[in-house]
Amino acid sequence: MDALGTHLLIELKECSSELLNDLDYVRDVVIAAANEAGATIVGHTFHKFDPIGVTGIVAIAESHIGIHTWPEFAYAAADIFSCSDTFEPHRAADLIIQRLQSGQPSITEIKRGFVASLATSAT
Amino acid sequence: MDALGTHLLIELKECSSELLNDLDYVRDVVIAAANEAGATIVGHTFHKFDPIGVTGIVAIAESHIGIHTWPEFAYAAADIFSCSDTFEPHRAADLIIQRLQSGQPSITEIKRGFVASLATSAT
Repeated sequence: MDALGTHLLIELKECSSELLNDLDYVRDVVIAAANEAGATIVGHTFHKFDPIGVTGIVAIAESHIGIHTWPEFAYAAADIFSCSDTFEPHRAADLIIQRLQSGQPSITEIKRGFVASLATSAT
Repeated sequence: MDALGTHLLIELKECSSELLNDLDYVRDVVIAAANEAGATIVGHTFHKFDPIGVTGIVAIAESHIGIHTWPEFAYAAADIFSCSDTFEPHRAADLIIQRLQSGQPSITEIKRGFVASLATSAT
């Protein structure tokens, strides 16, 4: 039985705190990662929090990429949900890890949507 | 050591396929769930796919709620990321499950962001 989606949970520790607090930089990183990994962006929303921190969500035709940063802890939590064969979520994850300069990244991959009817309904 | 965030992964099986394909309904459900659970919405983006399916992301001050629907399988995948003590992510999850009429829901809770400096840096 195949899953409908793949959900990556990405822990980004030991990042550059300065970069994590730069709204424009974080937005550019996530949008570039989506594009370079083959995603089609259909919408996005990014926000800077007071006093520090950035949250951003990119809706893609292949599902979504989200990121939330805690510059005070040099930490960001990202997640990438993919339901496509053409979008490469691990490539997007690697790009985000690299560009936020995480010294201690980790990725957990979770398969989503094992539906009983998939084997017979899918063509 | 406390976590910075709580991430709920919600599997919604045996939903109403008709509701899952109704963009306005899905958007209203997620926004209402966010509001009723104490979230502060800072942005959202929802899209209807051809031929079927809806994807939606709500950015909240307390992080995000995402949903992706597969009406053809009566299935939706949702996730709720919370970094707040006032927003109740399980309440939002319960509301989404109820209003999409899932006959077989499940929730996985994952703690995010165990950062070594949290115990000494947090006040």
